[in-house]
Amino acid sequence: MPIDFAVDENTARFAERVREFVRDVVIPEEQACDGVLHDGPEPLRQRLQRAARDAGVFAPHVAPRWGGAGLDLRGQAVVFEAAGYSLLGPLALNIAAPDEGNMHLLAEVADERQQHRYLAPLAAGEIRSCFAMTEPAPGAGSDPRALATTAVRVPGGWRIDGRKWFISGADGAAFAICMARTSGVPGDAGGATMFLVDAGNPGLKIVRNITTLDEGLFGGHSEVLFDGCVVGDDAVLGEVDRGFAYAQVRLGPARLTHCMRWLGVARRARDVALDRAAVRSAFGRPLDELGMVQQLIADSEIDIEAARALLWRACWELDQGRPGAQETSIAKTFVSEVVHRVVDRAVQICGALGISADAPLSRLYREVRPFRIYDGPSETHRWAIARRASKARAALR
Amino acid sequence: MPIDFAVDENTARFAERVREFVRDVVIPEEQACDGVLHDGPEPLRQRLQRAARDAGVFAPHVAPRWGGAGLDLRGQAVVFEAAGYSLLGPLALNIAAPDEGNMHLLAEVADERQQHRYLAPLAAGEIRSCFAMTEPAPGAGSDPRALATTAVRVPGGWRIDGRKWFISGADGAAFAICMARTSGVPGDAGGATMFLVDAGNPGLKIVRNITTLDEGLFGGHSEVLFDGCVVGDDAVLGEVDRGFAYAQVRLGPARLTHCMRWLGVARRARDVALDRAAVRSAFGRPLDELGMVQQLIADSEIDIEAARALLWRACWELDQGRPGAQETSIAKTFVSEVVHRVVDRAVQICGALGISADAPLSRLYREVRPFRIYDGPSETHRWAIARRASKARAALR
Amino acid sequence: MPIDFAVDENTARFAERVREFVRDVVIPEEQACDGVLHDGPEPLRQRLQRAARDAGVFAPHVAPRWGGAGLDLRGQAVVFEAAGYSLLGPLALNIAAPDEGNMHLLAEVADERQQHRYLAPLAAGEIRSCFAMTEPAPGAGSDPRALATTAVRVPGGWRIDGRKWFISGADGAAFAICMARTSGVPGDAGGATMFLVDAGNPGLKIVRNITTLDEGLFGGHSEVLFDGCVVGDDAVLGEVDRGFAYAQVRLGPARLTHCMRWLGVARRARDVALDRAAVRSAFGRPLDELGMVQQLIADSEIDIEAARALLWRACWELDQGRPGAQETSIAKTFVSEVVHRVVDRAVQICGALGISADAPLSRLYREVRPFRIYDGPSETHRWAIARRASKARAALR
Amino acid sequence: MPIDFAVDENTARFAERVREFVRDVVIPEEQACDGVLHDGPEPLRQRLQRAARDAGVFAPHVAPRWGGAGLDLRGQAVVFEAAGYSLLGPLALNIAAPDEGNMHLLAEVADERQQHRYLAPLAAGEIRSCFAMTEPAPGAGSDPRALATTAVRVPGGWRIDGRKWFISGADGAAFAICMARTSGVPGDAGGATMFLVDAGNPGLKIVRNITTLDEGLFGGHSEVLFDGCVVGDDAVLGEVDRGFAYAQVRLGPARLTHCMRWLGVARRARDVALDRAAVRSAFGRPLDELGMVQQLIADSEIDIEAARALLWRACWELDQGRPGAQETSIAKTFVSEVVHRVVDRAVQICGALGISADAPLSRLYREVRPFRIYDGPSETHRWAIARRASKARAALR
Repeated sequence: MPIDFAVDENTARFAERVREFVRDVVIPEEQACDGVLHDGPEPLRQRLQRAARDAGVFAPHVAPRWGGAGLDLRGQAVVFEAAGYSLLGPLALNIAAPDEGNMHLLAEVADERQQHRYLAPLAAGEIRSCFAMTEPAPGAGSDPRALATTAVRVPGGWRIDGRKWFISGADGAAFAICMARTSGVPGDAGGATMFLVDAGNPGLKIVRNITTLDEGLFGGHSEVLFDGCVVGDDAVLGEVDRGFAYAQVRLGPARLTHCMRWLGVARRARDVALDRAAVRSAFGRPLDELGMVQQLIADSEIDIEAARALLWRACWELDQGRPGAQETSIAKTFVSEVVHRVVDRAVQICGALGISADAPLSRLYREVRPFRIYDGPSETHRWAIARRASKARAALR
Repeated sequence: MPIDFAVDENTARFAERVREFVRDVVIPEEQACDGVLHDGPEPLRQRLQRAARDAGVFAPHVAPRWGGAGLDLRGQAVVFEAAGYSLLGPLALNIAAPDEGNMHLLAEVADERQQHRYLAPLAAGEIRSCFAMTEPAPGAGSDPRALATTAVRVPGGWRIDGRKWFISGADGAAFAICMARTSGVPGDAGGATMFLVDAGNPGLKIVRNITTLDEGLFGGHSEVLFDGCVVGDDAVLGEVDRGFAYAQVRLGPARLTHCMRWLGVARRARDVALDRAAVRSAFGRPLDELGMVQQLIADSEIDIEAARALLWRACWELDQGRPGAQETSIAKTFVSEVVHRVVDRAVQICGALGISADAPLSRLYREVRPFRIYDGPSETHRWAIARRASKARAALR
Repeated sequence: MPIDFAVDENTARFAERVREFVRDVVIPEEQACDGVLHDGPEPLRQRLQRAARDAGVFAPHVAPRWGGAGLDLRGQAVVFEAAGYSLLGPLALNIAAPDEGNMHLLAEVADERQQHRYLAPLAAGEIRSCFAMTEPAPGAGSDPRALATTAVRVPGGWRIDGRKWFISGADGAAFAICMARTSGVPGDAGGATMFLVDAGNPGLKIVRNITTLDEGLFGGHSEVLFDGCVVGDDAVLGEVDRGFAYAQVRLGPARLTHCMRWLGVARRARDVALDRAAVRSAFGRPLDELGMVQQLIADSEIDIEAARALLWRACWELDQGRPGAQETSIAKTFVSEVVHRVVDRAVQICGALGISADAPLSRLYREVRPFRIYDGPSETHRWAIARRASKARAALR
Repeated sequence: MPIDFAVDENTARFAERVREFVRDVVIPEEQACDGVLHDGPEPLRQRLQRAARDAGVFAPHVAPRWGGAGLDLRGQAVVFEAAGYSLLGPLALNIAAPDEGNMHLLAEVADERQQHRYLAPLAAGEIRSCFAMTEPAPGAGSDPRALATTAVRVPGGWRIDGRKWFISGADGAAFAICMARTSGVPGDAGGATMFLVDAGNPGLKIVRNITTLDEGLFGGHSEVLFDGCVVGDDAVLGEVDRGFAYAQVRLGPARLTHCMRWLGVARRARDVALDRAAVRSAFGRPLDELGMVQQLIADSEIDIEAARALLWRACWELDQGRPGAQETSIAKTFVSEVVHRVVDRAVQICGALGISADAPLSRLYREVRPFRIYDGPSETHRWAIARRASKARAALR
């Protein structure tokens, strides 16, 4: 099979529908909430998801069995980028974080009963979920092995204790997937287990919603306390002590789907800037005929194309059933930095307008910054990329 | 006189008082308003300015005749940086934009009567002011000669008509200094006049307060309409048709005082990051012992030192009574980009904390972005810098 | 057909043969000439090409009819990168500039007779050629339309007059493809014609060989004078006045094959640095465990992967029969800058060794710099990229 | 004493003489040697130094007692930059590395007898010298404590054994200052001693002259072997075991004088590019009116001004008698990177001319690259800068 950059027809048609849907239905809704979703506006979510279902673009990533289109990662790359053109797009298609990643995880790891109970309503947009892994220092952060939350055996189940923060979508979630240590001590490479914890559990408390630079994630980011939180044996997701392995199952693709959505954001910013540069003049010429502005425009074109190519490359790798750890790290690091640069350039091209709420750019500017930190900061990825490169080279010597 | 980087004793002592004042009085006030000053919290302003007066650090830039310490620009560079360490510091010392620049302009250009009426209470912090120059496209923006607001002769005075936006501090200001075209057409290099317009004038209307990425400027940025706004002959600041020249009188130093204050912001971000990097560990070592973090730290050290050196250089130039246009453009461009980079690196070092409101960084991140656009976008300055360099070289050929 | 990054088996096997050939045969020859090919060492060229023929890796890009493997651009991308791992590799495979591009041009545009006379021996490595387009200022440079060399009708043919420079491989070439203006004036978008000029023509003079930073191109770069150079009608390549269009036929793929070869250079530099970083220690640890070095390593990994992905993307575009002007410009600009950065980082990692001739890096460092200028400087490409982006966006408004 | 950027009159006049001397005498000599000094052309050196003496600009850094002008570091900063405008300038003024640094070291550390024997003829340009510290891996490189060369007591003196490389100016030097370990083992922070070794010593052998990217240092860089090299007690420079401390005495100022000379190179490259951009057109306009070229020009202006300001800052610090380790590291790191960027941009602006020997840029491009490695690679300096910043901040907590 030769190198091929063609998008298959089915995906291309799906993406075209998404593009129209975003343009005609989603973007007009943006003004209502100004891109702020941290307080979890349920009516908006339901309205958008109903419209997406009507437009035939709902849940493209989910297996047909659960009502989706079953696109592989390459197909998702094309469609999610189209959806990400509006900050509300992923919410509408039910492909926003963390639900999208949780659906993937449940599809891969959950048993039949758990899938019916959790995956089915999640895929249908009836409920929301969260993924409780990150902890305040000195717990699990850029180094997941520092996991400090514990789960100990109690009769008929487990008792979970620990503090989590930056748990996206926790406020309003019907259930949490909680990562807790069932053996070993913080710093050990193994010993983690995933638990499904229902929102009603008295041992699960939302301490506060954290104010952050970004405000576009539905339900925001919460600090969550597991305080003597008792769950049954049926709450174990997959097998005991295999949590870190499952986290990789979730995180690899989740990093890429993040990239897809954010690439849509970059394209949006680019288009806003191009539209502005065509009509705004300085020194007697349209901005887009001034060399320094052309340099900003060209750099963003190059950045976006390179980001997409790396992203597709990583998706292809995972679609072949390979782990693709290096490709995923490279794509995540590069795309997250590209998205920031593209939005920053768009702001600069638009000048005062770019930093005012009269254009969507200042909102996008706030939203994209954390992406260089979420899902592994660039430094952690670079460290891993360098180590793998050194190892790969050593194997050839 | 040899090259000398020593700060004179008087300034050094003043700066030390400011540092203590910021640490002990100003920073504890930050939480109250979370750095948001766009809605112009008067009680806070008055409380802070009273405290600054008590601490002997009020209005360091104003001539002793008007109650200040009469520091030259080099002295201001040292003191304003110390004040800028908190976003509230400049407000407390009455050295925030746009009042600080307006005081300078009035001291240079206003007649005795105007100085008593406008400068005296402004220097005392009794009133606030604004500077109404920037216009929506296609008016005066990065190219000031595009000025479209007009002032035409009427019996006993002038009638001003035009729309301004991004007029900082307009909401609540006791008077505006309005730039209007009294001869020529938009695009002409001359023909502007400055007018002092009192807040009560029925022809002066605040249309709206613009929502912007930054929120730390007292009173925010407004859209302002001059609609058949009639003023007397005594409202003319300086001479008719010399407005562009006066704008340079104001803008040169104002660019530098902006740099001074923002350099304080950069130092604050740097310190927050260093404090975090000393106590947060990853992979078994404190962050500040990890090479990639050390690179971020070192790059910010270099950036800050270079920014300060260029800033002092430009201040010295202006203190010698020279225009220093090239030095000012260079300092403004470089410092504004340094400040952005330093805050961005600090956010990255602090990770999730850096983008949450638990640390001041996400606030600073929002505040500093517009600085690469305000007071002339980097592109306009680079264009001017290149032209001057080409001309200077041609003169030697 | 879905997005696919797999290399087809035939190409993969060919590339593997090339890798072995470069490692076992070509690299050992490097010391002999220290990478310097400007003086055109014929015995080395013949020895290498014979060895390549023996290894079954000669002329992979040429149609089977002329003795090659007929790889499309995607196949060339894989194979040329493998060959580029040594500066001598492309020479050995007969895929070095400018011959490789000339073969492509002749295959596309020359008539049967011309192909037998020029293409056949060129493809067989029996002769060499050059492409005479670039002129000293104010002639054809980054703006080809400035073409000043003229060809005027004389009985039975044409007389060519003009000065060319940076004509790679001219010294020792059996023929030149000369670009001359047959109608219009410098600055016009059309009016150029290509002529085949034999080396023996008394009107074709090599004025001098230009000393340049790079020294790895066989035969170097010459200044060439067409001085009353008379050729017959059969010297016209393709049709009169269509020279600019043919230049695009040549330049598009030629830019990409340049990128392929240089990507091999980047990989070589990367490997040299990784090998060094594994054995050299500082402060008690191998270099490749120090964070700042890891950052250099990771950045080069990301750069190389992104460069290759963009390159393949552009090759695919051209293989579909589309012009791919935007994709080609993007790939050329990005790859040329990546190659520079990767070599520069490798030099830095290797320290004093990196700048000495004990390692190949200082040679590579010199060779890669001009690539950001040759084949259109980055600024010209960025200008074109921006204009196309603006136009594409305008078409959607 | 207030912040002051004025150059005192005496220095300004000296610098003006140097500028004229470089323009009228030195630059015309450039063509003769094409900037290549590695083979140590003695007649050229003597001719230039005689001319410098005639012009009253010889040895500005040396104390009047030894025939110089006794400029402090700030004065040297101004004068050396003027001399560095040509690669031959420092040679002419006898302020080239390594002699200039050795003169400083001898003036500070040598006893009266040693000064008469070594410093006097060195300052007069009668002889040359070298500084033998750097060793091949795993010896003293970016980490000087790895010093492996040993000196052991023998009757009446010491026997030195060890291998050095990158010993600049060794070929033709009348004496070497050799750094050898007199106590402890490689890795220890102390235990080094400096020895004065005459060229005739049979234990001192020049193994080879290393081919390097740069070729502009008089005499080049040699690999040197100390092989049972016996010296008397009077060969000890300063005190036994204090060599590392003396190295700092030499290296601090030597880093800055390097920066001064290289800043002259940057200015030269800048001027060549400005001259070219004024006369070369593209797309119908002079290059210096094209936005992207203006950006290159402006960035170099900013870079040069920032580099000079940081350099002066560090010089002032050392002139106050303070160690200035942080200021020196910051200046060295920043200036070395600026010089590279400025030359690189100049090459890009000049296009094909920039990489040919028809302009001096390709020579400068080769010369400046090693400066990011010599005198401590940027990474080592950044590591030190970060550590000092962390410590300084910790002291305030």
